[in-house]
Amino acid sequence: LENGETKVFRKRFLDMHFYDQAQFYLSLDEAQRQKLYRVLNPHEMGDFFDTIEDDLPQMSDLLREMAPQYAADLLNDMFDDNAADILEHLPKEDVNRYLSLMSKPDAIELRKLLHYDTETAGGIMTTDFVSLSADLSVGQALAELKREAAEAETIYYVYLVDADQLLVGVITLRDLIVNDNHTKLADVMTVNVITTSVHDEQADVAQKIRDYNFIALPVVDDDQKLVGIITVDDAIEVIDDEASSDYSGLAGVDVDDVSENPFKSASKRLPWLITLLFLGMSTATLINHYESLLSEASILAVFISLITGTAGNAGTQSLAVAVRRLALGNDKKPRLFKLVFGEILTGVVTGVITGLTVMVIVGIWKQNLMLGLTIGLAMAAAITVANLAGSLIPMLMDKLGFDPAVASGPFITTLSDLTSVLIYFSIAQLFIRAFIG
Amino acid sequence: LENGETKVFRKRFLDMHFYDQAQFYLSLDEAQRQKLYRVLNPHEMGDFFDTIEDDLPQMSDLLREMAPQYAADLLNDMFDDNAADILEHLPKEDVNRYLSLMSKPDAIELRKLLHYDTETAGGIMTTDFVSLSADLSVGQALAELKREAAEAETIYYVYLVDADQLLVGVITLRDLIVNDNHTKLADVMTVNVITTSVHDEQADVAQKIRDYNFIALPVVDDDQKLVGIITVDDAIEVIDDEASSDYSGLAGVDVDDVSENPFKSASKRLPWLITLLFLGMSTATLINHYESLLSEASILAVFISLITGTAGNAGTQSLAVAVRRLALGNDKKPRLFKLVFGEILTGVVTGVITGLTVMVIVGIWKQNLMLGLTIGLAMAAAITVANLAGSLIPMLMDKLGFDPAVASGPFITTLSDLTSVLIYFSIAQLFIRAFIG
Repeated sequence: LENGETKVFRKRFLDMHFYDQAQFYLSLDEAQRQKLYRVLNPHEMGDFFDTIEDDLPQMSDLLREMAPQYAADLLNDMFDDNAADILEHLPKEDVNRYLSLMSKPDAIELRKLLHYDTETAGGIMTTDFVSLSADLSVGQALAELKREAAEAETIYYVYLVDADQLLVGVITLRDLIVNDNHTKLADVMTVNVITTSVHDEQADVAQKIRDYNFIALPVVDDDQKLVGIITVDDAIEVIDDEASSDYSGLAGVDVDDVSENPFKSASKRLPWLITLLFLGMSTATLINHYESLLSEASILAVFISLITGTAGNAGTQSLAVAVRRLALGNDKKPRLFKLVFGEILTGVVTGVITGLTVMVIVGIWKQNLMLGLTIGLAMAAAITVANLAGSLIPMLMDKLGFDPAVASGPFITTLSDLTSVLIYFSIAQLFIRAFIG
Repeated sequence: LENGETKVFRKRFLDMHFYDQAQFYLSLDEAQRQKLYRVLNPHEMGDFFDTIEDDLPQMSDLLREMAPQYAADLLNDMFDDNAADILEHLPKEDVNRYLSLMSKPDAIELRKLLHYDTETAGGIMTTDFVSLSADLSVGQALAELKREAAEAETIYYVYLVDADQLLVGVITLRDLIVNDNHTKLADVMTVNVITTSVHDEQADVAQKIRDYNFIALPVVDDDQKLVGIITVDDAIEVIDDEASSDYSGLAGVDVDDVSENPFKSASKRLPWLITLLFLGMSTATLINHYESLLSEASILAVFISLITGTAGNAGTQSLAVAVRRLALGNDKKPRLFKLVFGEILTGVVTGVITGLTVMVIVGIWKQNLMLGLTIGLAMAAAITVANLAGSLIPMLMDKLGFDPAVASGPFITTLSDLTSVLIYFSIAQLFIRAFIG
């Protein structure tokens, strides 16, 4: 494709969708990319850079292999939320170099965006939106849109502000098309505008966009001034990122980068495994402490993995439900007390029924009712405790301001191994005379 | 709000966003809802019914409490993908009753949609799109849009078809606004249209919409005729549903409905727990089989939970990665052989390093090098096998046409308990003379 026929290539390349352009670009080697930089201007590059994932590890290298001014122009041409996302992942000196090569107003705009916490509305919003005065007519607004269309990330929503930049209404391009040209915007705009604050968490923002089926959501600052918008494609990224982080948490491994080599995979999984190995060692130490009990009744060893395994499963279930509930946002959270009480009740019900089942099975299998009772009782108690740990630990972490998803599944199961073993041997010690009598 | 002042209420209610109207409606009791049915016409009800979740359990009751013709008109007024989604969850006689009360063409349209598999592009698409002839001018297209705006789910993309309904191009409303009225659509349309087939899986469709940042994606049938579109809000639902089902699978519990009572929660979790209890019983039986070994060296019991727990954690990690990789769609899947080889290597590396760690710890703790070696070896083998099970089982289920996410985390950990114990005692039996000598 790239053997000298620049014109043919340019036409073919620019006819592709931006996403396909980006995929093509990412498949090239450096020499080929250098050719591309000569053939395409920064504006044409910026168009498809908007579709590249911002946390691409090689992004910094890609920008460095371009002439600095070319890279700065490219970043400047991108929608500024995407440019800010890329800058966020670059070393500080690179950020300053590129910003210094941009025009003052653009650099100031980008610096402002970089200032917001990445996981808030301010961190994901773009300032490339269209805002007009509500005094205009539909025809004037359409003419204005025509002028601003090239710069704006979306022109499907037009935000109407007063002289102080306060948001007074919104009108969709659909409404503009449907109404007559001489109609005043103020007469047809929606005054009941759903907004979000720059400080709102990105997950809540994404949920709002999803609930209302919006294409974009306006962002206001503390003075209720319109400062940006968040578009639906950013909301999708957020929903996917949050789901992926909940999922990674539950598994105790970062699943985001799945196409890597086996040694890198192993190095990602090992830290958790080794950490939990030490927690598991305390369980081993605990069992060791009961060795005399075990040598007296080696039958007890038979049920260790049954009890720890089942309690671990129950703990994982309640952990998953708790993390999901916390992720759903504040308005859907029931009161703490009700939640705790509910979890205790769920744990007790699950524990008692599973305990009774195992009591009957063991009682029949070993023809030893007291042994069955011991195992059943230990199982019921272990499940109840594991359920509680699975639901209370993420809630506690959330209260303390940590991400509840870091209380991972493997952590809960390993912790529940410890409590289950403690419960099991305490109960066994109590009943040992009865079942080995 | 609702005490007789119908006019005031109507104005207030209709000023709210559809989503807020729906939330208000769902908060009413039946008597209040009956009042609402008298105050609002089916068209006004349909507007906000579009925002209600289609799998709401009480949907069937809500529709039954309306006059049948009113319910039919309401469904008819909704975007037809949403109406079809609701009908899918209703009993057959209700579906037929409502369809018979609609106009013939509308009923036929809906029946067609109901015919598609719910998890495919056909199952989530809407037929409420705008398609025009490419021979029109921009001005004519805008006039046409004005007429069709009320019916269409989105007018931001206009699809251009030939006489046979074959898709020849697409143009965005943005392009229409920017270009002059007398320009021919054929001269400014995008001819390289990204489409999806009615049979494509919904997850792949959502991924496409996400990659390309589309607001809507056209759906074509086997003859390449345009039959529907899928809008970005449906893509969000799909992405969220798929993430939620992967997550539920990993936890072995359906986390979708989190605001329920403790007894219902318990009844949802118990089937899995009890099923896995029986699988866990086979592990217990296996340990029981080795009871003579255990009574000879009760120290072996100390490390059962350490080995099963750590192997279970490793299995959960590789399960999560495998399920995620399968969810990413076909184009990103590396070749099967490479995958299996990669997973084996990851398993071996993780297993060997963890095994060495535990060997050293146990060797020092118990001042028994041979015991350390036994535990370390068992640990390394158990982790390797658990890793393989965690990655191969979901891949196998995918090949066999099952949803890989149903190979749940608890299932993998319980299965890995069994293999770990088998490995552990086999190795221990081999070395027993060496460490208790």
